[in-house]
Amino acid sequence: MKQVVIAVDLGGTNTVFGVVDKEGKVLHQTSFKTQAYPEISAFVTRCGEAVSSLLKEVGGAEQVKAIGIGAPDVNYWARTIENATNLPWKGIVPLAELLEKETGISVRITNDAKAAALGEMLYGAAKGMKDFIMLTLGTGVGSGIVVDGKLVYGRKSFAGELGHVSIRPESGRPCPCGRKGCLETYCSATGVAQTACELLADSHYSDSLLHRLNPSEITSKDVFEAAMQGDALSNEVFRLTGEWLGEACADFATFSDPEAFVFFGGLTKSADCFMPHLVETYQKTVFDNYKGTAKFLISTLKDGEAALLGAAALAWLDETV
Amino acid sequence: MKQVVIAVDLGGTNTVFGVVDKEGKVLHQTSFKTQAYPEISAFVTRCGEAVSSLLKEVGGAEQVKAIGIGAPDVNYWARTIENATNLPWKGIVPLAELLEKETGISVRITNDAKAAALGEMLYGAAKGMKDFIMLTLGTGVGSGIVVDGKLVYGRKSFAGELGHVSIRPESGRPCPCGRKGCLETYCSATGVAQTACELLADSHYSDSLLHRLNPSEITSKDVFEAAMQGDALSNEVFRLTGEWLGEACADFATFSDPEAFVFFGGLTKSADCFMPHLVETYQKTVFDNYKGTAKFLISTLKDGEAALLGAAALAWLDETV
Repeated sequence: MKQVVIAVDLGGTNTVFGVVDKEGKVLHQTSFKTQAYPEISAFVTRCGEAVSSLLKEVGGAEQVKAIGIGAPDVNYWARTIENATNLPWKGIVPLAELLEKETGISVRITNDAKAAALGEMLYGAAKGMKDFIMLTLGTGVGSGIVVDGKLVYGRKSFAGELGHVSIRPESGRPCPCGRKGCLETYCSATGVAQTACELLADSHYSDSLLHRLNPSEITSKDVFEAAMQGDALSNEVFRLTGEWLGEACADFATFSDPEAFVFFGGLTKSADCFMPHLVETYQKTVFDNYKGTAKFLISTLKDGEAALLGAAALAWLDETV
Repeated sequence: MKQVVIAVDLGGTNTVFGVVDKEGKVLHQTSFKTQAYPEISAFVTRCGEAVSSLLKEVGGAEQVKAIGIGAPDVNYWARTIENATNLPWKGIVPLAELLEKETGISVRITNDAKAAALGEMLYGAAKGMKDFIMLTLGTGVGSGIVVDGKLVYGRKSFAGELGHVSIRPESGRPCPCGRKGCLETYCSATGVAQTACELLADSHYSDSLLHRLNPSEITSKDVFEAAMQGDALSNEVFRLTGEWLGEACADFATFSDPEAFVFFGGLTKSADCFMPHLVETYQKTVFDNYKGTAKFLISTLKDGEAALLGAAALAWLDETV
């Protein structure tokens, strides 16, 4: 019986390999700098070495069900990484195929935000759920949508870009994507900092602690720390952030009628500040059918392990290997 | 081999039964008035008689794969009709179970708007597609979302209420559902009439043909007919309607990355008036990943048969019967 999977968290800085069991225990781990391998062939060779070293730990390839990879800009159907902006390799990289040839082990690859949703379903806050939406509130807003126990990929596997739903189509903030009022311009760490900067211009908040900082350097962490000290402006920022997220979730509910919304990412450290407003706005504005039916949860996976566990879940949940 | 299914279009006025083959040919048909049976037991008995009469036509129950029902307010998971506002029976009606007992044939039941999407997938504009969104533009706006070849139901089978996504969360029209700016307050037949009424107050359109009508009696059909005669106000109504729909579809794309949007319902008779604006706005505003990838199609099923074919598709596509 296959005892473990090998999970790969392929990021712009580090590529982390982990051996993970069915219960989500990371048994062994190894990593290297992604940018040290500007040629994909050298990267694949280095991945093969990492896998070999881990196989020695677990007693050989026959113990491994599959390799699961979470990476940016993945085309799930084609099993490729395509035009990634934060990785060294240009164009279309058939990484799953290359790594299968290198290791002889089945490889599954998906987008990191989607893998995170699978990790949550197998090991985390969404354990046992079949319908939920995961929102990653970081520098941007990522998402993974699970319907009837399966990730929603769509035609080209670009489904689940909920950070680019426009919540203010008329007057909204410009988004680098070209749209106006995208959710991620408001409810990401960057969005929170921008909201704070906008409120600093309001004379009502002339005594805000944030006036001590250079506006262009304010981070969501600064806003959180000020809010913890009772700063009215900072609390208003999180009230607005919660309202925007609550409105957005009310729209998302009409799509897939989820059992829960699961939040992950740096901004969830401030969840106590925005979550009550999120839930209140959601319950107030959502279509009647959905009132009171959804849970609002924070990821229960450890920051340092979530990406690996997502990639591990991809390998465990694949019924074809 | 099973040759046919029995399809049931259960509406507030009529309940229509049809024998439908795999190619979508309606071979036999019978119907009766729904409201003539205020007691569910009498309704089920009457349904049994309708089935019996159709079985005689096809050569017995062994020719029938299953019965498929499209009805309002269906809980797909529970196989019940729940608190339907336009049907005579109050509370929760376990119709699938009752009709199975009455006929001895497997019964599948789903929401009529969702059945319509299945009909389109098996017989219509979405033939062969696995990822598409169907929008029914009628008195309201209904929808059915297909992901990887399957309908999205969600936790309580309330998924796909896209008519209640708010496209104008701040300044939008009040919706009977309690939300503000719901898509259906703008892009339904009712919404089109309201847009026309609002524009009539604009002195710019003092020569509009619609001024000849009583504003409270203007219908989307009147607006369409005036547009066909070159009425500037009416053309502006459809330009706005197309823009709103295009914006909404751009948001929906981020959810499930569909291959196509399929439009159905009375308002699609005016598709020539709004579709060019819809597509233009979509391409202009949609997130880069989706640009140029979605088709915009009008249902190819006949008005009078679409509901039956949807119910038939439900029965044909169910792999468990």
